[in-house]
Amino acid sequence: MKKISDSTIRRLSKYYRTLTGLIESGVDTISSNEIANINSITSAQVRKDLSFFGTFGKRGLGYNTEQLREQIAKILGLKRNWNVAMVGFGNIGRALINYMEFKKQGFHISAIFDNDPMKVGQEVESIKINSIDDAADIVREQNIEIVIIAVPGKHAQATIDHFIKCGVHAFLNFAPVAVKVPDDVLVKNENMSIELEALSFFLTNVK
Amino acid sequence: MKKISDSTIRRLSKYYRTLTGLIESGVDTISSNEIANINSITSAQVRKDLSFFGTFGKRGLGYNTEQLREQIAKILGLKRNWNVAMVGFGNIGRALINYMEFKKQGFHISAIFDNDPMKVGQEVESIKINSIDDAADIVREQNIEIVIIAVPGKHAQATIDHFIKCGVHAFLNFAPVAVKVPDDVLVKNENMSIELEALSFFLTNVK
Repeated sequence: MKKISDSTIRRLSKYYRTLTGLIESGVDTISSNEIANINSITSAQVRKDLSFFGTFGKRGLGYNTEQLREQIAKILGLKRNWNVAMVGFGNIGRALINYMEFKKQGFHISAIFDNDPMKVGQEVESIKINSIDDAADIVREQNIEIVIIAVPGKHAQATIDHFIKCGVHAFLNFAPVAVKVPDDVLVKNENMSIELEALSFFLTNVK
Repeated sequence: MKKISDSTIRRLSKYYRTLTGLIESGVDTISSNEIANINSITSAQVRKDLSFFGTFGKRGLGYNTEQLREQIAKILGLKRNWNVAMVGFGNIGRALINYMEFKKQGFHISAIFDNDPMKVGQEVESIKINSIDDAADIVREQNIEIVIIAVPGKHAQATIDHFIKCGVHAFLNFAPVAVKVPDDVLVKNENMSIELEALSFFLTNVK
């Protein structure tokens, strides 16, 4: 597959949400222009993003919202469930356990890891907190494919290295540090201050 | 100013972090090619993103890391502090109060609002929890310019409407719902499942 940019994948996630909202509002058909307007981009961008994955919709007739949503779900890997583990059960971990959006999109947190002996063995929302020493077994038994890193920055690299050895290839990193991984592993950094910077840009340059 | 895309602003935030890391590692000069490689994009993209804001670096000599970081900080509005209020003190609110990245980039949470009478009047990390009824006064007194929305989805629109009336133009919305605002207001949605979708895309299509 042609290399798809992060920006394109991100926009596909936005189109997916746009379409979900439209379907909930009873809209059957939509043009690339309308999808573009809702997302404050150009219709050429919408058509280009979709063109990487085939031909959608009918020229002049627009897209069927249900069909396009299904197709984007398939592209994004949302037509199945994913087993997710979370490492680190501090403030961010606690917030994420109750974050309903993950479950809604098919991301199921089925294991928590922490290295605090006081936390290991406890259950949170029916999910057991395990010692990181047991990671290899649990990753295999539960078929964990994605790991959320919610440990302090100084432990992020070692934690990711450990889970790579356990066979995990995909990480969502909340620790605000850059980590190095092999080519067949993807780390997405969730840095919440990046969205705040879009706001300070707006207040400084646009408003 | 020419309309700058969300993707460009996002990449500027990434270049800013790349440069911060390089400066910490003692690197003085860098080419657009090297910035591109670190961020897995093309050097043409890096040069295009920067070109919206003027001419940086010297042809063939690359960029001075300190200078370029300063210039990007200025573009993103990071050369000053911003007073931020947070509305909703549940799990996400609790995680954000201790999120050091905000403070590091100049975003200071100076007020918390909640509508739970049990929480109003308490202090968290020396920040008082206020009733939303007092929003107008506090926004004015503390010069709040950015508001983080960490309330349940069903209250997000009404909360944002209320703070717009108090004079706030910029919102970071953690509630997983779309909200409608006037043209002179910007809402950025922090939907943490979007990054997970980049991982499921990777596992489905690339790995």
